[in-house]
Amino acid sequence: MNNQYILTWQCPDSSGVLAKVTQALFEHGAFITETSQYSDPYTDTFFSRIAFDDRQLKVPMEEFTDALEALAKPLQLHYQLRNAAQLPKVVIAVSKDEHCLVSLLTKWRAGVLPIDIVAVVSNHQKCEAICQFHELPYHYLPIADDKVAQEQQLLAVFEQYQGDLLVLARYMQILSDQLCTRLAGKAINIHHSFLPGFKGARPYHQAHKRGVKIIGATAHYVTSDLDEGPIIVQEVKAIDHSYTIEQMVHTGHDIEAIALSRAVRLHAEQRICLNGDKTVILT
Amino acid sequence: MNNQYILTWQCPDSSGVLAKVTQALFEHGAFITETSQYSDPYTDTFFSRIAFDDRQLKVPMEEFTDALEALAKPLQLHYQLRNAAQLPKVVIAVSKDEHCLVSLLTKWRAGVLPIDIVAVVSNHQKCEAICQFHELPYHYLPIADDKVAQEQQLLAVFEQYQGDLLVLARYMQILSDQLCTRLAGKAINIHHSFLPGFKGARPYHQAHKRGVKIIGATAHYVTSDLDEGPIIVQEVKAIDHSYTIEQMVHTGHDIEAIALSRAVRLHAEQRICLNGDKTVILT
Amino acid sequence: MNNQYILTWQCPDSSGVLAKVTQALFEHGAFITETSQYSDPYTDTFFSRIAFDDRQLKVPMEEFTDALEALAKPLQLHYQLRNAAQLPKVVIAVSKDEHCLVSLLTKWRAGVLPIDIVAVVSNHQKCEAICQFHELPYHYLPIADDKVAQEQQLLAVFEQYQGDLLVLARYMQILSDQLCTRLAGKAINIHHSFLPGFKGARPYHQAHKRGVKIIGATAHYVTSDLDEGPIIVQEVKAIDHSYTIEQMVHTGHDIEAIALSRAVRLHAEQRICLNGDKTVILT
Amino acid sequence: MNNQYILTWQCPDSSGVLAKVTQALFEHGAFITETSQYSDPYTDTFFSRIAFDDRQLKVPMEEFTDALEALAKPLQLHYQLRNAAQLPKVVIAVSKDEHCLVSLLTKWRAGVLPIDIVAVVSNHQKCEAICQFHELPYHYLPIADDKVAQEQQLLAVFEQYQGDLLVLARYMQILSDQLCTRLAGKAINIHHSFLPGFKGARPYHQAHKRGVKIIGATAHYVTSDLDEGPIIVQEVKAIDHSYTIEQMVHTGHDIEAIALSRAVRLHAEQRICLNGDKTVILT
Repeated sequence: MNNQYILTWQCPDSSGVLAKVTQALFEHGAFITETSQYSDPYTDTFFSRIAFDDRQLKVPMEEFTDALEALAKPLQLHYQLRNAAQLPKVVIAVSKDEHCLVSLLTKWRAGVLPIDIVAVVSNHQKCEAICQFHELPYHYLPIADDKVAQEQQLLAVFEQYQGDLLVLARYMQILSDQLCTRLAGKAINIHHSFLPGFKGARPYHQAHKRGVKIIGATAHYVTSDLDEGPIIVQEVKAIDHSYTIEQMVHTGHDIEAIALSRAVRLHAEQRICLNGDKTVILT
Repeated sequence: MNNQYILTWQCPDSSGVLAKVTQALFEHGAFITETSQYSDPYTDTFFSRIAFDDRQLKVPMEEFTDALEALAKPLQLHYQLRNAAQLPKVVIAVSKDEHCLVSLLTKWRAGVLPIDIVAVVSNHQKCEAICQFHELPYHYLPIADDKVAQEQQLLAVFEQYQGDLLVLARYMQILSDQLCTRLAGKAINIHHSFLPGFKGARPYHQAHKRGVKIIGATAHYVTSDLDEGPIIVQEVKAIDHSYTIEQMVHTGHDIEAIALSRAVRLHAEQRICLNGDKTVILT
Repeated sequence: MNNQYILTWQCPDSSGVLAKVTQALFEHGAFITETSQYSDPYTDTFFSRIAFDDRQLKVPMEEFTDALEALAKPLQLHYQLRNAAQLPKVVIAVSKDEHCLVSLLTKWRAGVLPIDIVAVVSNHQKCEAICQFHELPYHYLPIADDKVAQEQQLLAVFEQYQGDLLVLARYMQILSDQLCTRLAGKAINIHHSFLPGFKGARPYHQAHKRGVKIIGATAHYVTSDLDEGPIIVQEVKAIDHSYTIEQMVHTGHDIEAIALSRAVRLHAEQRICLNGDKTVILT
Repeated sequence: MNNQYILTWQCPDSSGVLAKVTQALFEHGAFITETSQYSDPYTDTFFSRIAFDDRQLKVPMEEFTDALEALAKPLQLHYQLRNAAQLPKVVIAVSKDEHCLVSLLTKWRAGVLPIDIVAVVSNHQKCEAICQFHELPYHYLPIADDKVAQEQQLLAVFEQYQGDLLVLARYMQILSDQLCTRLAGKAINIHHSFLPGFKGARPYHQAHKRGVKIIGATAHYVTSDLDEGPIIVQEVKAIDHSYTIEQMVHTGHDIEAIALSRAVRLHAEQRICLNGDKTVILT
């Protein structure tokens, strides 16, 4: 059984960047199984994801990482290299609506999501039973009068489990600027609208009022600018005038869960690069 | 060969409204071929479209319209009754991009759109040749320094042809408040975004900047509130990070043309009711 | 609090059928809250669904049903009238894949699906725990060497709970002709392809081999003609050449669950009429 | 202004193939602007498309092609290298329905499709006028009693214009096995169904009979196995029970035109690799 590795990198675009990196991989015996690139003509940045295995590796992985490190400086390379077997540790935050949580748990248990869910935090007790069923630690962190303290508890849980990713699975609290900064690129939220339409609270109410014919859901990285973070996945569903707000809410459940679980998968597979306020998805 | 009629009506919702109208139709021998209703629980308004033919009509149509008129007052009915063979007269306004215009013309010539296109107006000469090919009057109304005068010319053309519907098929001018009011419910615009996202100018540039993963097009009635008119049809198309603005523009052409031609068809078939700032589509 | 009723009916199309039924409703004081019709020009059949409440009912419901019964003979009416509060009793059959089951359970518990899930049957033990969590009876009916006997047990469970609807939520057994006939119009299956493409076993393998660019899922009534029953809902998802069979299977989970739960909802709300081998969906 | 080149290649997958080709590009000074790869785990084949320009080219292109040729043998490389400015010459075949033809012409004239349409052939005269409007040669090749002779005329036209691609834009004739073989990989057809459903004649009639809830269109390479050629693009559109066959036909027009023009674009941009009976789309 081979070891699988994922190398995701970006750098200023220039002649030969792909050649140099793939050459380094080749010389050390890496066998590329998947590769995807994007060269952004607006920012002159090169993005790449290369999956490889060690079936023909000629040297210890350490030597390869040395070679990669040697390239990093001249090419101004930012990269992340990981053994694919080391799954990202995920903490899920949820409030009362459990559809996104259940979707993530079901896919995870079915072996579909390459993550390691380590804990669930919530400002409500409603989802505790389903987490117990899945033998997952559930941290009930009610918001009394001190929102700041509660958020610190949340961060403490994340750090206690050495979380790599915080997934806001319909967690109906706005994170503080500090926490957003602290978790930059490590927190994914699902917003129940087709952003940038209907930011903020009660998007289905807004959508109903506006009379749109399609509703949407948007998974995005959390930033301190509410609902303005880099978009990862968007899903939509056609509706018509006869949908009540409640029916829009219920119909939205499915596309929210799909968008969020896909975003989590893309992140876990290191397929997402940040490109300013946007994402590059290397599939 | 029977005559086909379309009756579209709305009224405050109360017990028996559907029974009374269908009973009147039945007593006069109308044969219903298609019917669709919607009862809005938010505004307590009843909307209905009934298509019927005269294969069994017992009395002249005048008597039926008298019966309908007698119902209108007690039920506070607003209705429109039309012989389906009397096609709405459509004037198309266009600027330089011809994809929506060509789509409408092609469908019209193929017998797919139940409208009568009577003229095209434009602030550019670019689309004149294709209109000549289709033997359609083309009114070139350049915008010199007097935008008000040009708009009056446009309205004059619309009235000269006794237009029933003005279709803004990528007409890149904002209509004045007066003209919007004058053409309320009689002017359909295609906006090249998924409203309410990216209102105003250069929506694809806005969409590119925001990094959305799906682009859209919205056909809506024109109101003096820019890009805020009642939405009729929305279409979307998945894109990814690699789309340049130009590619988004080109990809958008198709969904714009589809959304607009469908909106025109729905209007021509009297399937659209205005419900405040929203539409009810009776299909 | 009013009682809500749903009346779904169909009959040979003729002048006045809608008038007569709505008139009967009106005379007895039924207040129509929702109505949808379809007149099939190919089979000259009229289909209708009328939801009403008793806020203004002048007579006991029995008198109204008598009036309806009086109409049934002359109009050759087939109808189903139900107090909406009497939820259909649903038995779910499942094998090893639990995504459709979990989706139904989650929506049901969230109050989104107007059904009463009374039991789960399975030829495997895998899904027992999640059913216990939801405090649902789980009947493990393994298929030893006697497939006929197992099926009789399944039917016995269905009858024991007075089931109104059997939902095959990825139940990987083909029902016998007798059981299909016995459950005609009362059993909904989810097939993991866009029918009529890829009938039978391992549809994702078939789809992968054919190189399709979109995969699908189809919810349909079960008939003795395998995967040929009347289609209720179809869902699709774009894929590309890079999807392995496993990825197609996992991607398909979502659209299967969505198609099936929507079909169950449509059935439970009495929105589906059979029209020969096809369905009319009265939304 | 730089010259743009497109290199599309495939070979048996082995360690270093991407490194070797990109290294050769780098050494000669090619500046990669776009790159896409796929490694098929089922057939162990590597597919790649690399777009580059000569802004930093150190040697004449001939020397680069020599270097590429030197790689071809040891790597068992099949490749196609083209100056992007040399547009493929396209001959369009059409019968009576003009929607696909008009869509291609409109996009082409708008500068959206990187092709050079050189002629149109048809077994009917219906589309002659629109081709004259676009100043395109129109070859009317009626099918009298000799279908073989007509097909030879069609091929003669294709060769007379040195056609690179034959686009069957709703050309309602089945090509002979010989012609299919002759044009292998050079002829794209649009079939008006979601293949593999509803192969052969009158697919919308078939779809109506089966009662599907979504219709589709499939652009594929032509092979002697009718409607079984490698699929390039599929598009779908939701419908419901109320669609007549005619409405399905009209609704299908849009998705047929979109699927076909996208397939033509992908082919023209050398983004399609054949992978047995399937396609790899390198976007």
